[in-house]
Amino acid sequence: MYIAVIHGPNLNLLGTREPEQYGSMTLDGINQALRGIAKEMGVELSTFQSNGEGELVSHIQQEGAKASGILINPGAYTHTSVAIRDALLAVDKPTVEVHLSNTSAREEFRRRSLIADIVVGRIMGLGAHSYQLGLQGLVQHLQETGT
Amino acid sequence: MYIAVIHGPNLNLLGTREPEQYGSMTLDGINQALRGIAKEMGVELSTFQSNGEGELVSHIQQEGAKASGILINPGAYTHTSVAIRDALLAVDKPTVEVHLSNTSAREEFRRRSLIADIVVGRIMGLGAHSYQLGLQGLVQHLQETGT
Amino acid sequence: MYIAVIHGPNLNLLGTREPEQYGSMTLDGINQALRGIAKEMGVELSTFQSNGEGELVSHIQQEGAKASGILINPGAYTHTSVAIRDALLAVDKPTVEVHLSNTSAREEFRRRSLIADIVVGRIMGLGAHSYQLGLQGLVQHLQETGT
Amino acid sequence: MYIAVIHGPNLNLLGTREPEQYGSMTLDGINQALRGIAKEMGVELSTFQSNGEGELVSHIQQEGAKASGILINPGAYTHTSVAIRDALLAVDKPTVEVHLSNTSAREEFRRRSLIADIVVGRIMGLGAHSYQLGLQGLVQHLQETGT
Amino acid sequence: MYIAVIHGPNLNLLGTREPEQYGSMTLDGINQALRGIAKEMGVELSTFQSNGEGELVSHIQQEGAKASGILINPGAYTHTSVAIRDALLAVDKPTVEVHLSNTSAREEFRRRSLIADIVVGRIMGLGAHSYQLGLQGLVQHLQETGT
Amino acid sequence: MYIAVIHGPNLNLLGTREPEQYGSMTLDGINQALRGIAKEMGVELSTFQSNGEGELVSHIQQEGAKASGILINPGAYTHTSVAIRDALLAVDKPTVEVHLSNTSAREEFRRRSLIADIVVGRIMGLGAHSYQLGLQGLVQHLQETGT
Amino acid sequence: MYIAVIHGPNLNLLGTREPEQYGSMTLDGINQALRGIAKEMGVELSTFQSNGEGELVSHIQQEGAKASGILINPGAYTHTSVAIRDALLAVDKPTVEVHLSNTSAREEFRRRSLIADIVVGRIMGLGAHSYQLGLQGLVQHLQETGT
Amino acid sequence: MYIAVIHGPNLNLLGTREPEQYGSMTLDGINQALRGIAKEMGVELSTFQSNGEGELVSHIQQEGAKASGILINPGAYTHTSVAIRDALLAVDKPTVEVHLSNTSAREEFRRRSLIADIVVGRIMGLGAHSYQLGLQGLVQHLQETGT
Amino acid sequence: MYIAVIHGPNLNLLGTREPEQYGSMTLDGINQALRGIAKEMGVELSTFQSNGEGELVSHIQQEGAKASGILINPGAYTHTSVAIRDALLAVDKPTVEVHLSNTSAREEFRRRSLIADIVVGRIMGLGAHSYQLGLQGLVQHLQETGT
Amino acid sequence: MYIAVIHGPNLNLLGTREPEQYGSMTLDGINQALRGIAKEMGVELSTFQSNGEGELVSHIQQEGAKASGILINPGAYTHTSVAIRDALLAVDKPTVEVHLSNTSAREEFRRRSLIADIVVGRIMGLGAHSYQLGLQGLVQHLQETGT
Amino acid sequence: MYIAVIHGPNLNLLGTREPEQYGSMTLDGINQALRGIAKEMGVELSTFQSNGEGELVSHIQQEGAKASGILINPGAYTHTSVAIRDALLAVDKPTVEVHLSNTSAREEFRRRSLIADIVVGRIMGLGAHSYQLGLQGLVQHLQETGT
Amino acid sequence: MYIAVIHGPNLNLLGTREPEQYGSMTLDGINQALRGIAKEMGVELSTFQSNGEGELVSHIQQEGAKASGILINPGAYTHTSVAIRDALLAVDKPTVEVHLSNTSAREEFRRRSLIADIVVGRIMGLGAHSYQLGLQGLVQHLQETGT
Repeated sequence: MYIAVIHGPNLNLLGTREPEQYGSMTLDGINQALRGIAKEMGVELSTFQSNGEGELVSHIQQEGAKASGILINPGAYTHTSVAIRDALLAVDKPTVEVHLSNTSAREEFRRRSLIADIVVGRIMGLGAHSYQLGLQGLVQHLQETGT
Repeated sequence: MYIAVIHGPNLNLLGTREPEQYGSMTLDGINQALRGIAKEMGVELSTFQSNGEGELVSHIQQEGAKASGILINPGAYTHTSVAIRDALLAVDKPTVEVHLSNTSAREEFRRRSLIADIVVGRIMGLGAHSYQLGLQGLVQHLQETGT
Repeated sequence: MYIAVIHGPNLNLLGTREPEQYGSMTLDGINQALRGIAKEMGVELSTFQSNGEGELVSHIQQEGAKASGILINPGAYTHTSVAIRDALLAVDKPTVEVHLSNTSAREEFRRRSLIADIVVGRIMGLGAHSYQLGLQGLVQHLQETGT
Repeated sequence: MYIAVIHGPNLNLLGTREPEQYGSMTLDGINQALRGIAKEMGVELSTFQSNGEGELVSHIQQEGAKASGILINPGAYTHTSVAIRDALLAVDKPTVEVHLSNTSAREEFRRRSLIADIVVGRIMGLGAHSYQLGLQGLVQHLQETGT
Repeated sequence: MYIAVIHGPNLNLLGTREPEQYGSMTLDGINQALRGIAKEMGVELSTFQSNGEGELVSHIQQEGAKASGILINPGAYTHTSVAIRDALLAVDKPTVEVHLSNTSAREEFRRRSLIADIVVGRIMGLGAHSYQLGLQGLVQHLQETGT
Repeated sequence: MYIAVIHGPNLNLLGTREPEQYGSMTLDGINQALRGIAKEMGVELSTFQSNGEGELVSHIQQEGAKASGILINPGAYTHTSVAIRDALLAVDKPTVEVHLSNTSAREEFRRRSLIADIVVGRIMGLGAHSYQLGLQGLVQHLQETGT
Repeated sequence: MYIAVIHGPNLNLLGTREPEQYGSMTLDGINQALRGIAKEMGVELSTFQSNGEGELVSHIQQEGAKASGILINPGAYTHTSVAIRDALLAVDKPTVEVHLSNTSAREEFRRRSLIADIVVGRIMGLGAHSYQLGLQGLVQHLQETGT
Repeated sequence: MYIAVIHGPNLNLLGTREPEQYGSMTLDGINQALRGIAKEMGVELSTFQSNGEGELVSHIQQEGAKASGILINPGAYTHTSVAIRDALLAVDKPTVEVHLSNTSAREEFRRRSLIADIVVGRIMGLGAHSYQLGLQGLVQHLQETGT
Repeated sequence: MYIAVIHGPNLNLLGTREPEQYGSMTLDGINQALRGIAKEMGVELSTFQSNGEGELVSHIQQEGAKASGILINPGAYTHTSVAIRDALLAVDKPTVEVHLSNTSAREEFRRRSLIADIVVGRIMGLGAHSYQLGLQGLVQHLQETGT
Repeated sequence: MYIAVIHGPNLNLLGTREPEQYGSMTLDGINQALRGIAKEMGVELSTFQSNGEGELVSHIQQEGAKASGILINPGAYTHTSVAIRDALLAVDKPTVEVHLSNTSAREEFRRRSLIADIVVGRIMGLGAHSYQLGLQGLVQHLQETGT
Repeated sequence: MYIAVIHGPNLNLLGTREPEQYGSMTLDGINQALRGIAKEMGVELSTFQSNGEGELVSHIQQEGAKASGILINPGAYTHTSVAIRDALLAVDKPTVEVHLSNTSAREEFRRRSLIADIVVGRIMGLGAHSYQLGLQGLVQHLQETGT
Repeated sequence: MYIAVIHGPNLNLLGTREPEQYGSMTLDGINQALRGIAKEMGVELSTFQSNGEGELVSHIQQEGAKASGILINPGAYTHTSVAIRDALLAVDKPTVEVHLSNTSAREEFRRRSLIADIVVGRIMGLGAHSYQLGLQGLVQHLQETGT
């Protein structure tokens, strides 16, 4: 079982950027924590971050296609990118969407997620735990459905 | 640390009702699983289900007020109840909102949650795991913030 | 064949409340007329009225689950209750929705019925006849589809 | 007592057109069934179908004006014709609106009926029974109000 | 100078239909009054009424094309017909839109006129005078612009 | 019979301001033409123009109260002034609303008239003739209704 | 003269719940203050609080029907309950709606009151005084109209 | 303690204008009643009415700035004036908004108040009592908050 | 293989009507060109134009039912006719929708096509070529799908 | 070259009113600074402030008509005044719109400017500098276009 | 004559991605077919695909500027990219927009095309034929207009 | 003091692209002019242009983080990019938004700026001067606030 973890724009700044909104853990910290959980659950993991919508699309096409499932935080592209939605539809793998902050409690435009209706599950607002719980949930889902 | 788990209307039917939408685990099964996790994490737990909006409000007032945090799936009242929102605001405890199905992928009116912007975190679409991950996330949040 | 007839809030006042809007027949009168028709068509009938959303949900869960079909006038909850919709979805029985007054000719918010798209048929505006025609239509539907 | 029954566009195709949506009875079958009921209730009946909005308007002006009441299924014109509404307002006769399918459960634009607020009653979703129950309801209404 | 006067659906019922809304003058009465004014102003006049959208379109194509200007009350088609708009655009003659009643004071859907932005002028609410003032205004406009 | 003619903001600039939109006749020219028609029809006339909403309100209160009817072009206040609407409601006199240009063919916000539903009639798009036809229509209305 | 005072959900928490929003007086305190005023004005008074929509409906049906007037703060149900609106319409008694906080200055969904257009008067934002002024206003209204 | 009472456009007509809507008391009557209450409560009072938005703005700037609190019925400007809102924000004094009629039960555009979210309290629908209760409420508020 | 070509209202004026919008080719010219292509591709062809919605509906019922596929430019009825949509649904044949002008670049109301979601393909903006490419595309579609 | 500087309602309070929103410079200070810049650039300048919409309209008509360009901060009237828009259209002079605060970051209704689409340029959010940069920009625009 | 063919994001996956939606031909297959047609019609052709919005913008700037016309399927960027619209406006070449699937029959957000109103023609729903017919139509358009 | 100047997509085409909309100065010209002003004011300056959203995000992260303030024209991304908004929020530096054209006077979708509410100031419509005045305003702001 192989999970592709994908981080959208500005997530490379984690830990420094608006800590009251996004917490103080860095992206490296999050990736390491995920690798720990993955090891424990016996699943392989790759991680990727990009600020570019096109690069994220290409990564989903290439790495997502090989994965058993996708754990994605599309960041700002959550609210604007049909291209990422289309890439996820194209590779057609069980996907869990995570957000560090509770996007339902922020600006109006953050309430719309263009991938919300095509993912298996969504977790938001629990900081770095959103990722960790999301990875657990995704793996459990894959195990149960035998995908 | 004491967590009040609260289930809204029709969740008493779990396991029999629309299994393709909500899974085949019963509410008892979910509660038992939660109790197992709670034990492991060393936290107390109470569970409650009601079909009545007013009874849910009263339970939040009484049991929620004593709890360290609340894990709630308001079911259909998610989309219509200002009274439950007000009860949660009144007791003012860290709350995690969970849903069995991915409400973002269903009828338009299920996309609005009247408590979404006042909870700490939200988890949806992962069936019974939504509850379990939600409990984990809530406890971790309480531990970190020392609430 | 057994039909559960369910009346929503304020319908206990029929005959006294706004007669120019709802007619002068009492709820008892309506129930009796329905029993007469039921007898003639050879079907069993139960009737229930409540002002509480949760009690209506519980009744649908219990009595609706035993019935061949449901004849329901959810009254004011027609326009606001997702919980009643969910209960009807859960028991999954052919249902006919009736209204005494023509709700399409009243306040804007009465035009939305949260169960309109999950029922078999809808009858409105014909006073107590709405119920009687609804019962006939429901029984005919059940006979034809052999449900 | 004389009732004018009026069928809108495409209803001449009944029985062949989308039977899963509209049932397998032909328009002739429906008209014959209505004539049977009319005979039983001792009322006269005329039936008319047209694909043309203007012809329906003219028929309402001429035949509707002579009738005690109107039973109408305006078909697609339900959702688009102010002219048919105006014709019904002009002849000012008690009218019952019927639909074979449950229009509330179909495309968004089928939820708006331009005559809904000027008719006495509405029946939808019960196939050919919608017409038959509608005729009964209309005659009962006329008898009670003595119109 | 030749003016084509065109009346939309249900206007053939004038004098009998909802007199409190549309006045008691018949369509013949209105046409005669218009002919009197036309004579006085030295202009030719034709009048036409139809309940059919297609027939109105065809008449605009044929008679409108020959006219110096068009005086039109599209009745209910005012609010729904793009085809009549297109016919008026096609013949491209100065047009005045008139209404017997004040459509701005009636149902919401009567406030939209699909020809309002392509006519020279609009007159409404003054009963039969709307037509007469409209004819005067149209002729004056044609004289001034030398069309 | 005495008619109060009232002109709203910027109409004092007529003849100089955007002649392609509003024509080349000055406000004095329009008032004189109206006085000519008034004389012919045997009615008294006063004229008033102001750029101030409050002054227009006060004038309606004072002069409108004495008049048999009001001929008003509220100019830009047509679209924004509830106060002028209230003043007209307060004096409760038959009123005709006129506009030089066809406001239905201009910016979206010009399509809303806050007095449209409380006036007897409306005339627009016919330049200075809008006023003259409006005066005729108002006087005819007053004569017919004997107000 | 007998006034039924009715408090909606969560108002039992007054004094403890969000004091910066709702003030520090308890519900008992408010009821006592109201009884004092009632005594002074020579009117009888009953008070009732419930978290349940159905129970509030039943109370309006029973106690409201006996009262000369109703003083109601429907709390969260102000914004969601058609059933309470219908109960008030059914008993048809002069009613004054009060709110402790200024609901116009809070979340968007609190700006809609489903009873606002069927009550005599509305008072909001003045804390416990809202109730007291509301009682005064209701009694004065009843005295003046002799209801 | 000094209260500035401010009345908006058309309120000078009170007693004569639409008495079924606004009652039969004149503005002088209202002002006198307020002065009586003020005397009793030991507060100074000034009253001002204008039909002009700019004059109301200037009065708020000058007299409002000197006052302890403001009692205002902005009349029609309630729904359209950002300038009055800005003036109230500028002088920053506790303000109570009152309306004679229940604006929530009238035209749609009267439901929006541009000052509703910046005032302390709002009272509407109780005729002249709205003012009197408003004055009481404002004085009580000032006494309690010690402003 | 037999294709029914259907032209909506005002298309009989092609070549004369707004040539800058619709080009200078007549309807006969277009039909002839289509016949040429049809011959080349070895398919039969009928052509029909009407200004009447009802006549277009009847033609689709009769000729469409016999055809392998339909090439339709519903003209103005594109934006307003549910009846034509229903006729196309009833005969259930692969259909291509064409427009001479680019309707996406014109008035807002032309952007909605009531048949857009039930046709196989859509071509617009390429003048007479829209038809020719549409015929090619339709025939290719029929050949590939073997309908 | 002569520039008319125009300030809308409440700007006379600058320096005292909400300094955190509008800065601490007075209107006199701003005008003096503008005069300094004007002198340097060799252009004449007049300044005007009013709280009255009508007075601002009249000033634009008189002084604006003489000016080479207009520098305007319509204050609250930015969002509500069609009359000021019409006055600016009437005098038809290059205009720059300025705001002290960043109106895009405040209440929703402040985002709409009724003159935004008819001015040359817009500057907001830079406090008193908005005016100074606006004056520079306007003069540079006039010099370049040779207006 | 030289045509630049441009493919947006995810189109590199053609043939593998959702074949029931997009067909089984690969992008290479489509490009080859287009080259065949181009050869036949005697026009040069370049093809380009990218997942990146910025790269598509740059390509339009460089290659589009040299071309006689552009054939573009912006894929997901159709619905979200103002930048591609601006690039097309900048190079100002006749453009035809094509889509493999019928975007009008899919998710709501796919109905909006940000380039629809600036292209010459649009073709959708005909799979790979959309491109081929689009190329034909574009070349014919260029030949006729002599661009 | 160091200012990062950032230009969005298509701005590299300045001088050639739609000169009537954007002026005839090239991007180099603008940058040079800005450097002149910067020198005069004693501030350092870097300039950057990209067509790629991701590259702009990365540049803001790197160069913006070092700068005292940011002068940005996000071009088309103004209306669509949440990612650029997030990058600006992350680096949290005083920012001025500039546009060459008056975006308020163009297509509806250009009126929304996703960074408007998080910048210090906005300048639009003054061509290359927008940049120069923006730089002045930004530097003055930084000097005054001592950021």
